[in-house]
Amino acid sequence: MYIHINRNIIKHGLQSVTRLLIKNATLATMVTGAEPYGLIPDGALAIENETIAYCGPLATLPEDMKDWPSRDVDGALVTPALVDCHTHIVFGGNRAREFEMRLEGATYEEIARAGGGIVSTVTATRAASEDDLLASALPRVDTLIAEGVTTLEIKSGYGLDIESELKMLRVAKRIAKERPVTVRTSYLGAHAVPADYKGKSDLYLDEVCLPALKQAHEEGLVDAVDGFCEGIAFSPEQIAGVFAAAKALGLPVKLHAEQLSNLGGAALAAKFGALSSDHLEHLDEAGVKAMAEADTVAVLLPGAFYTLRETQSPPVDLLRKHGVSMAISTDCNPGTSPLTSLLLTINMACTLFRLTPEEALSGVTRNAAKALGLADRGMLQKGLRADIAIWNAAHPAELAYRIGFNPLEDRIWGGA
Amino acid sequence: MYIHINRNIIKHGLQSVTRLLIKNATLATMVTGAEPYGLIPDGALAIENETIAYCGPLATLPEDMKDWPSRDVDGALVTPALVDCHTHIVFGGNRAREFEMRLEGATYEEIARAGGGIVSTVTATRAASEDDLLASALPRVDTLIAEGVTTLEIKSGYGLDIESELKMLRVAKRIAKERPVTVRTSYLGAHAVPADYKGKSDLYLDEVCLPALKQAHEEGLVDAVDGFCEGIAFSPEQIAGVFAAAKALGLPVKLHAEQLSNLGGAALAAKFGALSSDHLEHLDEAGVKAMAEADTVAVLLPGAFYTLRETQSPPVDLLRKHGVSMAISTDCNPGTSPLTSLLLTINMACTLFRLTPEEALSGVTRNAAKALGLADRGMLQKGLRADIAIWNAAHPAELAYRIGFNPLEDRIWGGA
Ligand SMILES: [Zn+2]
Ligand SMILES: [Zn+2]
Repeated sequence: MYIHINRNIIKHGLQSVTRLLIKNATLATMVTGAEPYGLIPDGALAIENETIAYCGPLATLPEDMKDWPSRDVDGALVTPALVDCHTHIVFGGNRAREFEMRLEGATYEEIARAGGGIVSTVTATRAASEDDLLASALPRVDTLIAEGVTTLEIKSGYGLDIESELKMLRVAKRIAKERPVTVRTSYLGAHAVPADYKGKSDLYLDEVCLPALKQAHEEGLVDAVDGFCEGIAFSPEQIAGVFAAAKALGLPVKLHAEQLSNLGGAALAAKFGALSSDHLEHLDEAGVKAMAEADTVAVLLPGAFYTLRETQSPPVDLLRKHGVSMAISTDCNPGTSPLTSLLLTINMACTLFRLTPEEALSGVTRNAAKALGLADRGMLQKGLRADIAIWNAAHPAELAYRIGFNPLEDRIWGGA
Repeated sequence: MYIHINRNIIKHGLQSVTRLLIKNATLATMVTGAEPYGLIPDGALAIENETIAYCGPLATLPEDMKDWPSRDVDGALVTPALVDCHTHIVFGGNRAREFEMRLEGATYEEIARAGGGIVSTVTATRAASEDDLLASALPRVDTLIAEGVTTLEIKSGYGLDIESELKMLRVAKRIAKERPVTVRTSYLGAHAVPADYKGKSDLYLDEVCLPALKQAHEEGLVDAVDGFCEGIAFSPEQIAGVFAAAKALGLPVKLHAEQLSNLGGAALAAKFGALSSDHLEHLDEAGVKAMAEADTVAVLLPGAFYTLRETQSPPVDLLRKHGVSMAISTDCNPGTSPLTSLLLTINMACTLFRLTPEEALSGVTRNAAKALGLADRGMLQKGLRADIAIWNAAHPAELAYRIGFNPLEDRIWGGA
């Protein structure tokens, strides 16, 4: 998948400049206001070093770029590279046996007694070394990369003790060294109350969650702070405490909100200027309005909806009505979404949530970048990072329509 | 994906014998009566030429096979190679734009006026050359092969005139020459009434469907005869006529039945000793009993159920109760199931139809082979064809649990 393009390296004194011109492309720039898809049929895209130097019709390509080293892509579709903005891709073990037991008719109690559920992932994650966690995560990351992903978010939240939370974040950062991807980390100590703090969630927050956050931040491991606001996890008041600590450290926040019930999590997150609120199946119009005012991105996760066989979809019409940006993501995790295909996620967002292919593709490019607070990617536009996907497809709707098929031809990350 | 194994070719006079011993395998033989999965933890599998010479515990491996050229798979899961027993993988064009229009709120009438629906596929298939159809089908076939498929069924049914039906079947046969797979063809002239015979379905059957069947059979292009029994397609009486013609030619039959309503198609097919009845969402207990008596396989197609957002599942409990063999398949087609992942189909069969992982894996191995009338594959057993898949997995349930992830390590087709 890492096909290298012939590029010209021109020496200017001590500095080297790499340049590439992609010609004869069907560009889907995904630039806001240029819907549908910012389509440019006879497009050219010029890259200088890590940056897009030109993106537009071949007819208006600046004269001096015309003789840059070029690649004719024969009409192929060119889009921004994909961004997976919500993953729990670092974890120990797997839950295949639990999946099987449930289909064989086991009750949740029987599964819990057999050591299943999130507890089993926490146990396996705590037991695993950093190297183990890295080795098990990389094939999943490679699967995303093979579909054109260049940026992914990775959460902690299966350690639930100070050392294990730090370990997960270190592994997330190591992935960015091992593979040509940008990784954004989210600290998710407020994911679940571990067994050793059962019934003592406030104590868990004070003794583990907040100290681990502080320590992880000091080590430079945290790009954002996340939480799970739900009856089975943490209350809005508890989340507010975590968010206050994040703000005190100057970190942006985001929230798993309104997945199983409506506790007003999205409105709370909006009050803290959250980058995103995620899941949102039970979000009401007041929450939508609060998100719109704070310009918080709605991250929709159809893989979890599918796996859990939910019936209540997120309020897509209300999100449209109030102009909330929608992103979509794999939610890759071992329990409720063991999903490592962002292309399949696009199809699921269309099929299950009735997003249009244009909305779904925006959701894994422009709006996914926005959900991560990254203003330098997610569109094909002069001055942005040259993170680009080239597809064996004629029209962007094909990326949403096909199921279990990967038409990626090439992937460029930071110009390379 | 075609990793070649070091094998020893021993010359015996003029005949060459190739032998391979796979050691240290977690065998899932899928042999009937050895549930779950026919699991053998410390397994050995010996292959001589195209055939399995031994499959069982390493401890009881015959003495003379112990020094065969061997490969240690380090505990990896070894299963029969996969069989996709219901596809329409040869077709012209794609229907991405129609998919998009529907999500943008277009009515079926508007889509039909824009040239959408099966008509657009028939038009594109008629217009395409054999080479065009082959070139467009091969990437889809390659996607199946990359997941361990060695046998697939391919239907005609988008030509709907004599020459175009023959063309589709010739392309299907050519796929078996271009790629290391076994192809079984099904003649599906009774798929839909083409526009030029609108309101004259009996005339279509007499003038096109039956003459094309006869001609295709004479050319050796037909392994089985299929039909679509539904209000929008052909009546049970019409299907009976097609099946009678098939029987007169000595060809086995199968049927698309009870997908959208219950017309008694499965019982009709059973009366003709059908290999399989497929879809079956609206099948009733009388139909299930008829299938059980005829030993007709129930082929379940969750990709179409998912894409069409159906709510009525096939009667899995009744099929279990009466001991009907269940297979599952991609139903790969451009309209209702543009799906080219049999692994994802396994997950969908579990998630959407509540099959156990064991039933789902049987459905793409033993029972899928049975649905094609192939008694020589679908299990790991002495004397059967050496069609084998080796997986980076410890337990077969992992193949059902993961979504959009391909753990195939190697694939052996006919011993090679
Ligand atoms: Zn999550
Ligand atoms: Zn079909």
